[in-house]
Amino acid sequence: MLKEGERLDDLNFRGLVIIQHEKKFKFGMDSVLISNFTTAKKKDLIVDLGCGNGIIPILIASKTEDTMIYGIEIQEDVADMAARSIKINNLEKRIKIINNDIKGIEKILGYEKFDIVTANPPYMPVKSGFTKAEEAENIARYEVYGSLEDFIKTASLLLKFGGKFFMVNRVDRIVDIFVMLRKYNLEPKKVKFVHPGITKSPNLILVESKKGAKPGINILNPLYIYEKNGEYTEEILKIYSREKLEEE
Amino acid sequence: MLKEGERLDDLNFRGLVIIQHEKKFKFGMDSVLISNFTTAKKKDLIVDLGCGNGIIPILIASKTEDTMIYGIEIQEDVADMAARSIKINNLEKRIKIINNDIKGIEKILGYEKFDIVTANPPYMPVKSGFTKAEEAENIARYEVYGSLEDFIKTASLLLKFGGKFFMVNRVDRIVDIFVMLRKYNLEPKKVKFVHPGITKSPNLILVESKKGAKPGINILNPLYIYEKNGEYTEEILKIYSREKLEEE
Repeated sequence: MLKEGERLDDLNFRGLVIIQHEKKFKFGMDSVLISNFTTAKKKDLIVDLGCGNGIIPILIASKTEDTMIYGIEIQEDVADMAARSIKINNLEKRIKIINNDIKGIEKILGYEKFDIVTANPPYMPVKSGFTKAEEAENIARYEVYGSLEDFIKTASLLLKFGGKFFMVNRVDRIVDIFVMLRKYNLEPKKVKFVHPGITKSPNLILVESKKGAKPGINILNPLYIYEKNGEYTEEILKIYSREKLEEE
Repeated sequence: MLKEGERLDDLNFRGLVIIQHEKKFKFGMDSVLISNFTTAKKKDLIVDLGCGNGIIPILIASKTEDTMIYGIEIQEDVADMAARSIKINNLEKRIKIINNDIKGIEKILGYEKFDIVTANPPYMPVKSGFTKAEEAENIARYEVYGSLEDFIKTASLLLKFGGKFFMVNRVDRIVDIFVMLRKYNLEPKKVKFVHPGITKSPNLILVESKKGAKPGINILNPLYIYEKNGEYTEEILKIYSREKLEEE
């Protein structure tokens, strides 16, 4: 199942594994946090926009019941890697990887059919002067193929009325995020700020928005990653160790 | 100088005092925090929208040099109380209280003339069914006379290009705040969340926005009010005790 440059990583969670490529974008804590933050009901229809190696669909499949998850990934080799990880984990009946641009995916998957959309979009606008090769390396980090607005717009097109969009991003995009979510009728309902440490400013933001909802937001307790002594906080250890990811 | 029901409170800060009415809105920690958060240069022209008993103008006058501050207050008796507090503190040359609605104040003070606008607007939309008397009691807390949007729009009309607007509000208005600030060309540049405790979610937000600025926000270190043992944190004690309020 492994191709050159690939390795099989143990997720240390319910026996799950994932294929990652040495030289490509490997999943980070942000993907684990957004998977943990996401809540879904039994039999929900879910899309993960820009799924990369499939980490979010795999984690969400393992914490939900009878859900069907579509992972959309534009890079052919990465989508292929994700599909093989799904197979190794015996999740083919629960997760389907589609090698496609997120822009226009609603024409393939259908408008307003989904209960849940998740995304860990690229955090940074494209730098000018990227070479083709650099672009390929940086698709997961930079907005090479899809801007934040593309992700939010697509989420809105896919979601049913009342459906939820769960997204992680850098906290310094917070104004853009709120302005665009409201523009596309996805009202922010819950926010959790992630701080590297207790005295540090947050660097990540987890946002739950709901299509067609009225204004009114709940700012959840902050999540701190490290204790003052440099060790993980209890909350982070709990997220990484729990058998079944719990709902907020 | 005192009328019936009024008392003279010591601000425990550079010898300043303030008149407060037993039965009217008394200033809270939020006004102290926004005054501390506000930065102004020598000789800046400043407006405080909805100044109440004058707490913000008084504190800002004492931490800045040669600034001129206009405090706008719609309630005649409250504006009168503020003006008397200014006099007792010998700040008549630095602060002028104007008894007027904030809506339309730009026609009196002039468009785009100010360096700094500050505001601690009412936090809550008007409840239906308020009696006249209840309204008077609640002008400072509820949007009886001016909505959040009125405050933001007025700040924008008063500010020069590059001028700054400093506002405190309840954190659950964060989406409205960011959407409206951007709508009125006041780009949020700095945000500080205020948490009652280290493990608690924030309840207040301090926002610095800049007229005509490009997007890009700095989320500052969180401010915690209480330690786990129930005592004030060092940062709060510092804000309340420092001789000259410091810049962030």
